[in-house]
Amino acid sequence: MTAITIIGAGNIGQAVAGIAAAGGNQVQLLARDLERTQQAATASGAAAGVVGDAITGDVVVLAVPYPAVAEVLGTYGPALAGKVVVDPTNPLDFSTFDALVVPADGSAAAQIQAQVPDARVLKAFNTTFAGTLATRSIGDATTTVLIAGDDADAKAVVADVVRGGGLEAVDAGALKRARELEALGFLQLTLAAGSTIDWTGGFSLVR
Amino acid sequence: MTAITIIGAGNIGQAVAGIAAAGGNQVQLLARDLERTQQAATASGAAAGVVGDAITGDVVVLAVPYPAVAEVLGTYGPALAGKVVVDPTNPLDFSTFDALVVPADGSAAAQIQAQVPDARVLKAFNTTFAGTLATRSIGDATTTVLIAGDDADAKAVVADVVRGGGLEAVDAGALKRARELEALGFLQLTLAAGSTIDWTGGFSLVR
Repeated sequence: MTAITIIGAGNIGQAVAGIAAAGGNQVQLLARDLERTQQAATASGAAAGVVGDAITGDVVVLAVPYPAVAEVLGTYGPALAGKVVVDPTNPLDFSTFDALVVPADGSAAAQIQAQVPDARVLKAFNTTFAGTLATRSIGDATTTVLIAGDDADAKAVVADVVRGGGLEAVDAGALKRARELEALGFLQLTLAAGSTIDWTGGFSLVR
Repeated sequence: MTAITIIGAGNIGQAVAGIAAAGGNQVQLLARDLERTQQAATASGAAAGVVGDAITGDVVVLAVPYPAVAEVLGTYGPALAGKVVVDPTNPLDFSTFDALVVPADGSAAAQIQAQVPDARVLKAFNTTFAGTLATRSIGDATTTVLIAGDDADAKAVVADVVRGGGLEAVDAGALKRARELEALGFLQLTLAAGSTIDWTGGFSLVR
């Protein structure tokens, strides 16, 4: 059993909470609005709180829009030392939907790792729409979560949580591969925003 | 019917020749070694020639490794004006398999467009392994070819060739999206090279 804290109770936060809870893990869900967070937490069997509460998890998922990550790191920075910090963000320029806001040779995950150097940062959950995480399926296939990071133990912990929740997990390589995962997430978002694919679809990984 | 010239008789060149020929298009296959090219052309019903022969196609597919593209453009540059030039390359650093050799904020396709400004360059066929092009399937799904480019008519022509050959085609946006298609192709290659996925697998697009 892993203790997991999810910050953010939007679609991705709720979906990851549901996956983690389904696998019998201890789940804490923190967001800004306590009432809404309690509703989401009740649905998944998580403990609810507000951002600023002490983190109980060894794994912390930053399930907030990328522009809100800086504030979360400002709140919790030193408390994240030693923890596995999972970045599921897609750092799009939402005004144009035509570019990312992180350096071309970097990634949101790399930016986060630089801000919390004593945490073990992973990129995960950014290449699967929330709907395909919640239903565990994309088309006829089981949803696969791609996980990139430099710490093999941290990746194994999160992969176990994913598999325990009924999804597939794949090691996508070192944290520098976050750049490609974010490109994939970005491309997939443009395809759905342009109605080329549905929000229940996207890229499915065939082994 | 479209007249298509494919430069390169490797796995991708042969697969694209087979797709184009299956759809009843006029196919010319050019490569360095005439004997090998004739064998590949016979298999797909294409006309064989060597690099340097006059191009008969209105669509030209650069099915060579990225390092060989410069030489092809040196040979044919002015002859490509007005043509639809399709770039299926994945510009990996093959010595490390850990980076691309094009600028982080650019793409091989953008580099090619800059070298042949009067051609209409498309990115396509780089996110599907040759095996999944040849069999038309990836897992249980029909293989989808992602096509990015700035010329809608050019994209429609290539999409028709793809669909006529029994695959799915999707408009992946402007030529600047080639950067994300190349990131996807790169990620997929690292997964196969590391035996996380098979060369008959990869990312399948669910609509």
